[in-house]
Amino acid sequence: MKILGIDTSSEVATVAIMDDDKLIGEYTINHKKTHSQKLMPMIDEMFKSCEITPNDIDLIGVCIGPGSFTGLRIGVATAKAIAHARNIHIAVVNSLESLAFNMNLSKGIICPIIDAQRNQVYTCKYSWENNTLVSIDNISVKNIDELIDEIKERYEEVVLLGEAVDLHKDKLNDLDNIYIAPNSHKLARASSVCELAFEKYKKGDVKNHYDVVPYYIRKSQAEVQYEEKLKRMGENGK
Amino acid sequence: MKILGIDTSSEVATVAIMDDDKLIGEYTINHKKTHSQKLMPMIDEMFKSCEITPNDIDLIGVCIGPGSFTGLRIGVATAKAIAHARNIHIAVVNSLESLAFNMNLSKGIICPIIDAQRNQVYTCKYSWENNTLVSIDNISVKNIDELIDEIKERYEEVVLLGEAVDLHKDKLNDLDNIYIAPNSHKLARASSVCELAFEKYKKGDVKNHYDVVPYYIRKSQAEVQYEEKLKRMGENGK
Repeated sequence: MKILGIDTSSEVATVAIMDDDKLIGEYTINHKKTHSQKLMPMIDEMFKSCEITPNDIDLIGVCIGPGSFTGLRIGVATAKAIAHARNIHIAVVNSLESLAFNMNLSKGIICPIIDAQRNQVYTCKYSWENNTLVSIDNISVKNIDELIDEIKERYEEVVLLGEAVDLHKDKLNDLDNIYIAPNSHKLARASSVCELAFEKYKKGDVKNHYDVVPYYIRKSQAEVQYEEKLKRMGENGK
Repeated sequence: MKILGIDTSSEVATVAIMDDDKLIGEYTINHKKTHSQKLMPMIDEMFKSCEITPNDIDLIGVCIGPGSFTGLRIGVATAKAIAHARNIHIAVVNSLESLAFNMNLSKGIICPIIDAQRNQVYTCKYSWENNTLVSIDNISVKNIDELIDEIKERYEEVVLLGEAVDLHKDKLNDLDNIYIAPNSHKLARASSVCELAFEKYKKGDVKNHYDVVPYYIRKSQAEVQYEEKLKRMGENGK
């Protein structure tokens, strides 16, 4: 079965096609954040190069978050549109788990970080146990300084990856027990999304496109401000 | 500095652009072996998407082998042509080491295998020691059955990857101490080529394009037959 993988949860736009035990194609662009302009042309280009049409796709794997609000909406909307038109299922993939999967079979604790703005990151911790990726922490939003303190105090060796690594690299470079993943592994890859989507499919864990929504963790700044405004209006009305 | 990475040593065509601590783009196609038709359009497409021209490239990293004779010549010739036109250096990368780099920081022994035809594979063994990839064996051509016997007898856990895994999967699937890399990591990736090329550049290990030649290990079938023919002609002439 052919799986189309999509991840636009960060600055990176990445798409891939996997066919059972074979990666057919992968295309990743990490250049200016215009997912809405780039995503469909990237899929189209990769389809043409691989002589594949949307009719050949049996399942879509998409990162639903956590990550960039706008990025997630573009990736999820694209996945839903193709799944709707083709009447196929979607396997939803967590963007932190997908990053961790890049460090396949890695030693140590894997800690992906995705920018959550205001000096915060979306993060979790994973490790490979018996050749299986397992989460050993809850997904959360953390202040980067608190996360660094936690890593310094509690862990022997931690692999950090995700685009937020570059954002905070001045704080991360001098820490003895932190290994920063190389550029080849540091950012989102749709092939990892395909792998995790296929695992979910094999467990029957797939969704109708109507049921797929982005996974935001926290409210967007616009929602927070709207609620504050409503609250103020309520108070003024009393 | 911007590095263009190229690997056509197997059925996979893969290109990437890396800029110091950032992967800008990567494009991988594993669909029919027409590297001569696909390689330049893939580079062109990726350049356009990343708003890069050949004038922006400072170094080329290319896999020189071992691998497919024709594949290697296409990748190496393309690298040499761009380096010649731009008057820039080339960092040559071993295709087995580049595959091993895909399993960044992996536990166990990493054993890439590339098809060498006639039931043989080009292979080597690597491991991550103090976060550095080191080869723990010589690069060689081995009969796949001999390699499997060696792995069964001598190693605790071995990660196998490379396109030859699929070719011999019936023999590999039931072995307890073999972990086959997932599709996302199993095949050549130009981002790994870029990483290894950058490491070589930092050590001053780069070449003038005139000095770059494919690394064949053994003679091509055409050369073997030509030499046999010459030998027969010599014997007949006695």
